[in-house]
Amino acid sequence: MRATPRLTREAFDALVAAELPIANQLGFRVESLAPGHVVTRAVYQDGFLRPGGTIAGPVLMALSDYTMYAVTLSMIGPVALAVTTNLNINFLRKPAPRDLFAEGRILKLGKRLAVSEVTLRSEGEAEPVAHVTGTYSIPPRE
Amino acid sequence: MRATPRLTREAFDALVAAELPIANQLGFRVESLAPGHVVTRAVYQDGFLRPGGTIAGPVLMALSDYTMYAVTLSMIGPVALAVTTNLNINFLRKPAPRDLFAEGRILKLGKRLAVSEVTLRSEGEAEPVAHVTGTYSIPPRE
Amino acid sequence: MRATPRLTREAFDALVAAELPIANQLGFRVESLAPGHVVTRAVYQDGFLRPGGTIAGPVLMALSDYTMYAVTLSMIGPVALAVTTNLNINFLRKPAPRDLFAEGRILKLGKRLAVSEVTLRSEGEAEPVAHVTGTYSIPPRE
Amino acid sequence: MRATPRLTREAFDALVAAELPIANQLGFRVESLAPGHVVTRAVYQDGFLRPGGTIAGPVLMALSDYTMYAVTLSMIGPVALAVTTNLNINFLRKPAPRDLFAEGRILKLGKRLAVSEVTLRSEGEAEPVAHVTGTYSIPPRE
Repeated sequence: MRATPRLTREAFDALVAAELPIANQLGFRVESLAPGHVVTRAVYQDGFLRPGGTIAGPVLMALSDYTMYAVTLSMIGPVALAVTTNLNINFLRKPAPRDLFAEGRILKLGKRLAVSEVTLRSEGEAEPVAHVTGTYSIPPRE
Repeated sequence: MRATPRLTREAFDALVAAELPIANQLGFRVESLAPGHVVTRAVYQDGFLRPGGTIAGPVLMALSDYTMYAVTLSMIGPVALAVTTNLNINFLRKPAPRDLFAEGRILKLGKRLAVSEVTLRSEGEAEPVAHVTGTYSIPPRE
Repeated sequence: MRATPRLTREAFDALVAAELPIANQLGFRVESLAPGHVVTRAVYQDGFLRPGGTIAGPVLMALSDYTMYAVTLSMIGPVALAVTTNLNINFLRKPAPRDLFAEGRILKLGKRLAVSEVTLRSEGEAEPVAHVTGTYSIPPRE
Repeated sequence: MRATPRLTREAFDALVAAELPIANQLGFRVESLAPGHVVTRAVYQDGFLRPGGTIAGPVLMALSDYTMYAVTLSMIGPVALAVTTNLNINFLRKPAPRDLFAEGRILKLGKRLAVSEVTLRSEGEAEPVAHVTGTYSIPPRE
């Protein structure tokens, strides 16, 4: 049986600060972390923009992957080597140049795979700007 | 009938330099651009890393989206406001810390949607590190 | 402006009975249809089985597509020529040999594309057996 | 190390005949099977039709899954309990009412996951009608 040391928000922040520079450069942070449910934020930067004055798709994809990582580790503990195997994103609305929020939740936690869902919204907007599903592979236990 | 002004590599580079800062920050560039077929490169930076010493998924997704943008515009001309509607990525192998190459090709060019495929490889490796399909929406002509 | 004649459940059933034989053969039916929210059922048949005694993936995909069709038409009216452009399914749990329920909802209705989400469950089970997102293309109005 | 008993076409046909009734009902068959590369066919039936007189999406998805199953087993041997974990399909062109061909190939064979790609064409047409990627989960060896 897998013992599941609880992942604290502090432990996740420390892991990201030390080993995931792209999330730091893009100003991502966790707002709330509970087992199976995570809320994250991307603090707006002008570097997020794309033609048309909206936020570029790669920023949304990066925030989604960060959120999936957090929500997966919220269930399995600080297993840094968990890796994405698949990510599918539907872009729904053009995101205005402001902070983004992402809400991640687990759809299924298996022994080898964790499937999760992320919904992205612009700050102050009810309708989502993107919807993501993805799978993380959980490394075999030592 | 849509007149298709040919997209030159110089025009694409100029568009990205002016309006897509994330691609500049991540060191993306076009190696070859022909109608329906594009090769791009991400010049390795330590900022690409993730736990385990491999390249983070968001870098691969950003390079894929940049490549899809280039290959889509290679067919429809410099329509900067074309936007991604869907992107699906399968991560196949852990990418070593070195340059990445992406090869993009058009699967279907319609009036409203362009579907393309991107294969990503590490420099000097034959086997792909990721495979991507995605759809761009082509804005209605003025 | 697009006038949106309301789609009744009877109109959808009649369309499927006349023009979508695979849905008839597989015993699909609508349980509830409201604008933007649809519940459907696949009545179990032994023909659904796959090795291991669970229900085959194609049955789940067919039920998902039928549900997306219903929920899309629930928003745009009886536009029979709306077609799927993309469908992504994550299989979460092995479905036992019994009826399946699918719940579809609209994530985004645009002028040209409708993105929807479907969650599939086995009768009497709370946890989903599959999760689907997909896009329908809405034909230009005559 | 996993011993890999070669999968013959006869063994695959026998498995499907005995345990995958939906593939039999839909008239699917293998045209060619080699390790990592498979060609299959769906013999046209009027039951494939959808509004507009083209072939319904679920037929394409079912043929894709059957093809992925064949190409996965072509690599790992007759492991009937391998199951799809994810499938993503892009519909590219409306398929005319005639036989469909599908070509499947392995993108990555891992110890736990096999990722494959399927391209679908109408008989006698060069341009694909759909493109699929998907993942099969390989059960742990006894």
